[in-house]
Amino acid sequence: MRIVSVRDGVVPIASAIANAYIDFSKMTASVVAVTVADGGGRQATGYGFNSNGRYAQPGLLKERFIPRLLETSPATLEHADGGLEPAGAWAAMMKNEKPGGHGERSVAVGVLDMALWDAAAKLARKPLWKLLADRYRGGAADETAWIYAAGGYYYPGKDNAALVEEMQRYLDLGYSVVKMKIGGAPGTPLREALKEDVSRIEAVLKLLGGDGSRLCVDVNGRFGLHAALAYGAALEPYRLRWYEEPLDPLDYATHAALAEHYPGPLATGENLFSMQDARNLIRHGGLRPDRDILQFDPALSYGLVEYLRTLSMLEQHGWPARRCVPHGGHQFALNIAVGLGLGGNESYPEVFAPFGGFADATPVQDSRIRLPDAPGIGFEAKASLWAVLKDL
Amino acid sequence: MRIVSVRDGVVPIASAIANAYIDFSKMTASVVAVTVADGGGRQATGYGFNSNGRYAQPGLLKERFIPRLLETSPATLEHADGGLEPAGAWAAMMKNEKPGGHGERSVAVGVLDMALWDAAAKLARKPLWKLLADRYRGGAADETAWIYAAGGYYYPGKDNAALVEEMQRYLDLGYSVVKMKIGGAPGTPLREALKEDVSRIEAVLKLLGGDGSRLCVDVNGRFGLHAALAYGAALEPYRLRWYEEPLDPLDYATHAALAEHYPGPLATGENLFSMQDARNLIRHGGLRPDRDILQFDPALSYGLVEYLRTLSMLEQHGWPARRCVPHGGHQFALNIAVGLGLGGNESYPEVFAPFGGFADATPVQDSRIRLPDAPGIGFEAKASLWAVLKDL
Repeated sequence: MRIVSVRDGVVPIASAIANAYIDFSKMTASVVAVTVADGGGRQATGYGFNSNGRYAQPGLLKERFIPRLLETSPATLEHADGGLEPAGAWAAMMKNEKPGGHGERSVAVGVLDMALWDAAAKLARKPLWKLLADRYRGGAADETAWIYAAGGYYYPGKDNAALVEEMQRYLDLGYSVVKMKIGGAPGTPLREALKEDVSRIEAVLKLLGGDGSRLCVDVNGRFGLHAALAYGAALEPYRLRWYEEPLDPLDYATHAALAEHYPGPLATGENLFSMQDARNLIRHGGLRPDRDILQFDPALSYGLVEYLRTLSMLEQHGWPARRCVPHGGHQFALNIAVGLGLGGNESYPEVFAPFGGFADATPVQDSRIRLPDAPGIGFEAKASLWAVLKDL
Repeated sequence: MRIVSVRDGVVPIASAIANAYIDFSKMTASVVAVTVADGGGRQATGYGFNSNGRYAQPGLLKERFIPRLLETSPATLEHADGGLEPAGAWAAMMKNEKPGGHGERSVAVGVLDMALWDAAAKLARKPLWKLLADRYRGGAADETAWIYAAGGYYYPGKDNAALVEEMQRYLDLGYSVVKMKIGGAPGTPLREALKEDVSRIEAVLKLLGGDGSRLCVDVNGRFGLHAALAYGAALEPYRLRWYEEPLDPLDYATHAALAEHYPGPLATGENLFSMQDARNLIRHGGLRPDRDILQFDPALSYGLVEYLRTLSMLEQHGWPARRCVPHGGHQFALNIAVGLGLGGNESYPEVFAPFGGFADATPVQDSRIRLPDAPGIGFEAKASLWAVLKDL
């Protein structure tokens, strides 16, 4: 098993949208293609990209991670089932990297790891979800994945009517659960933001028949404890599906304080990029394994090799994999959700094109989706994304 | 106040040395020059670099942080004293960066922040230590800084005699406290490493007249709890100055367990790159403000603007600034130590040239050093470093 070549590029995923913390007008993503040859003369090319919220990593890829990947010893790439073992490549990529400081490089490694898993599944002539179920769950994959439509961003001039129209489009696509941003566009005073958000939430809830379990709200880490509690008190009567990332992702102690006072489900984790950071959230964040949601995104956090460590850590701490619903809305996490029995996956029907959304011929029904049977992650089955990747 | 230009480059700081976690054969550093013009027609060029252990950041600098720095609004760069306020540039550089994930970008921002402080001091016609004392301590700077000689790395063929000769050279230079690596070169089994390290430590202690308070030992994050306790039990009778980075830098709970069992001073923090990460160590790491040492390195962790936040956080938690002895052995942290009253600074007399070591005409006496009075950080007063920086 041998790494034959690695190619990389940068594509824009810019958009006029904003959440409460950043705007996305200059957002980019790295794309890579990794070609692997097995001992029997077969080759497969796997593809990878980073999901939104963190930037492309052309510098780190060229400076450190692609050169090290190309030096991976072939023996370390052999899995006991005869296929490709991405963990060997992961160790080679992380050689001479100090512990701690998990950001940016976690994205560069995550992009390459995604491509390696795509190649591993193609060499095995299986969809990735099936490869994962076979390797880690005795073949038991889920039939479908639960997904929800994430949107409801702030953009200039967007009023409640436009927000409700957007959510109606998600319902029309087959989603029954939707997510919207709250906390105010960057720079909005909190008192003003709360008043406006209550009006926005009530408008969307009206569309959803008043059923709070069909609506998630997302702050993107803007609040301190005071604002998180004030919003929490306002949100509590709506009995929402979840209240996402109210606080700085690393402020575990404040999460613990909030979790004592807000009874509904909290969700966080998309900005924690290693097993060690995830473990600190579990140890110190006071979250509740019977209700809270963990959103670690394998594409941003050293890939699936690290995500397997995170799942193992969660199991040791009494957290079932079903409490994980990854951030990012990509097919990689969707395969992981089905193959490893997660609670579901995010979906971006209208933003972050062409990386948001799943295979073309897989309609959403009642917020659930079936995965294609084509070998690999399934990028070739999503025309708009394949148009970007095939040129690599 | 206006950013006129930013130039950057990459230089090797490669060496045959190794610690217990990585080898340094491919280590690089970014160097930058930032020219700032004040409103009165004066210009100053400040210089910056990243200290060892993390790699150069040419990609992140070019992709995100230099372009944003060049777009900084002039008004945000004005300090109340009429000089340059780097915090305005910091906010501009971090625009549209999500919270969490503090690594790599913390190095890129740290390099630029160092150059901005060098420029700020030059515009004020003061050494940086004096500017800091004037802005933050009512003018009260220390007269000298405590420093210790860090070395004792593993390299192929190095025996106890060579280690003792190295330490003798540090004593001859005027250091009375020295530091050596322990934990074994990468790949050494732990039982073998411990036996060898006891022999190495006893050889060095003999040179130091048996005085453990003159010797620090550094594991570089390699151990788990079992190895850390086994080493701790072996080290305890020597009453060493400190036992550095025994554990993964993010494994706060295990630090707390170790601190309950190892009575001597522990030191850590060089691989925590933000105020939030430092705060988690303080909140959850079980460290003891009466004895333990905090080694956050401003050059690797978003610079002095962030380090001021960290010092403020420490004060709130009952930790005096004197417990801080930054990692990195650079003149930037040395100025901060003297200007803000830290406990001291690391020094690398023989490694990481030309970035290790301080101004040429400032001899070390009894492990203390006086800083030059030239404006800025003092790079121009260190010939070997200035030879690298002046070409930018």
